[in-house]
Amino acid sequence: MKKLINTPDGVLADSLAGYAAAHPEVRVDPVNRIVYRATPKEAGKVALLSGGGSGHEPLHGGYVGLGMLDAAVAGEVFTSPTPDQVQEATKTVDTGAGVLHIVKNYTGDVMNFDMASELAAAEAGVQVETVVVADDVAVQDSLYTAGRRGVGTTVLLEKIVGAAAEEGRDLASVASLARRVNDAGRSMGMALTSCTVPAAGKPTFDLPDDQMEIGIGIHGEPGRHRQDLAPASEIAQLLVEPILADLDFTGAPVIAMLNGMGGSPLIELYLMYGEVAKLLSAAGVTVARPLVGNYITSLDMAGCSLTLLKADDEILKLWDAPVVTPGLRWGA
Amino acid sequence: MKKLINTPDGVLADSLAGYAAAHPEVRVDPVNRIVYRATPKEAGKVALLSGGGSGHEPLHGGYVGLGMLDAAVAGEVFTSPTPDQVQEATKTVDTGAGVLHIVKNYTGDVMNFDMASELAAAEAGVQVETVVVADDVAVQDSLYTAGRRGVGTTVLLEKIVGAAAEEGRDLASVASLARRVNDAGRSMGMALTSCTVPAAGKPTFDLPDDQMEIGIGIHGEPGRHRQDLAPASEIAQLLVEPILADLDFTGAPVIAMLNGMGGSPLIELYLMYGEVAKLLSAAGVTVARPLVGNYITSLDMAGCSLTLLKADDEILKLWDAPVVTPGLRWGA
Repeated sequence: MKKLINTPDGVLADSLAGYAAAHPEVRVDPVNRIVYRATPKEAGKVALLSGGGSGHEPLHGGYVGLGMLDAAVAGEVFTSPTPDQVQEATKTVDTGAGVLHIVKNYTGDVMNFDMASELAAAEAGVQVETVVVADDVAVQDSLYTAGRRGVGTTVLLEKIVGAAAEEGRDLASVASLARRVNDAGRSMGMALTSCTVPAAGKPTFDLPDDQMEIGIGIHGEPGRHRQDLAPASEIAQLLVEPILADLDFTGAPVIAMLNGMGGSPLIELYLMYGEVAKLLSAAGVTVARPLVGNYITSLDMAGCSLTLLKADDEILKLWDAPVVTPGLRWGA
Repeated sequence: MKKLINTPDGVLADSLAGYAAAHPEVRVDPVNRIVYRATPKEAGKVALLSGGGSGHEPLHGGYVGLGMLDAAVAGEVFTSPTPDQVQEATKTVDTGAGVLHIVKNYTGDVMNFDMASELAAAEAGVQVETVVVADDVAVQDSLYTAGRRGVGTTVLLEKIVGAAAEEGRDLASVASLARRVNDAGRSMGMALTSCTVPAAGKPTFDLPDDQMEIGIGIHGEPGRHRQDLAPASEIAQLLVEPILADLDFTGAPVIAMLNGMGGSPLIELYLMYGEVAKLLSAAGVTVARPLVGNYITSLDMAGCSLTLLKADDEILKLWDAPVVTPGLRWGA
């Protein structure tokens, strides 16, 4: 296993320490493994909390800041944070207007965020609403989920709903918008290589030198099928077609994210976006806002995913609003 | 070779097409492979031009925009752009106040930018000044260079000098600042794996599963030595010590960049930065501005590099000035 780490067990703690050193605009609670804004949100505004297993950086800690999350709770690599961690973060970020939990649809995350919201309500009277992101069209159920897995739409949702919370909308409106964004997002991913979980010390799965996996999950969960390596233009079809078959993306402005899995360089991600853009244009889909880069990764996996979000004027306006986080930044 | 590409020969053209589709704020000349700002700089301000072989993304095309470069010329992967390409870009970006060429110290780049500046002067009367970046402390001469290789300081220099040009400083002042920044920057890199050049189809060099290379160049050029894999804390020492031995970084605010080589995920880069930050603190070095991420890469190479720049109040002010590019963005 070739990684820039000290010990497999210390990866999360060591990485959070480096993150705190690199970003004075956030604060890291090393005991509960929570990333907070250094300057909390004004009282009376809804707070946004997300989190989950680590290994998907910059998700979620990289999205803490003005216009996006108030805090992110980090579990061990590919492991849900505990209800205690989530409860602690929930109580801390609440300004009195309630907290939205943004949860990717994995059984452990859903259960632990759910328990945390009950505890925070019972012990501290915090109002919590939850949106479960479930946007991956690859598989209906999965190794770790009932229903679709939550992947790329999470990034777009945190940005859009974060802007709405910053405007001062109340908890019911923020939660309703979050569900609307989730309903409008679809994703599909693929892998050229497996990732390697530090504690395992070897690749999660074997993928021969001449094969790729289509429909992969962000933890290396099985996808739809394996096949021989193909040109980028064909890979783009394998991502675009299942998404367009699942939802009609014509007649509305679309936010399109071509995301890297962590081990694929930017020169390849831009190339893939070019292929995707051609197919979308041919299908009558109008990309209003493109985003290309590593936004929700799977450790060192080589590969990419595509997320399309069917937007409208309101969502685009929220998308364009200022965001100041380590992982996404513009307009301020 | 596992890559998201169509054909090895088409990588650059296809990637530039995707880059243009993803970033309407830049324009790509697909014939000359030049990335320009969509909105050119005001007349009378010095223009900044850089470029070199591709495969180091986001360098240089990702740094075209307000507060940084006016254009970037892309050669094939790890291959210098031609004098004709550079000359074309030089003439186009000149607003009458002259052009600064920012050239990484590789023989081909230095020669071709030099020829281009002579041609642009002779044919179009463009005033050109050149700064050659040579900041890599790993080796004195190298496979492709006389003198030190130009690596991470290039990113910091393009940002700092870009801000000075935006202020309206004249060509002599801009060039003098650029040389001062180069003199104040030092870098050192390491690789866990080789990169694979698409046209070659196989890794540039063999690096056994239990070994790493210290002092690697951004094209996979040999470094100082190979050794057994080591914990991140030891790798950090192997990067920090040669830099601090080469220049005294105490007594001044320092800009520190922990850069990924393209195949190492962010969770590892933050971890490495944490180790570096501890060593710098112990050595009495004050990091005023940290930067962690993939800024000057080597295709899919796993590994990282460290760049330290000895700054002062003027340089920090220029660093903090607004920058709006695909690869680096803040303050506007």
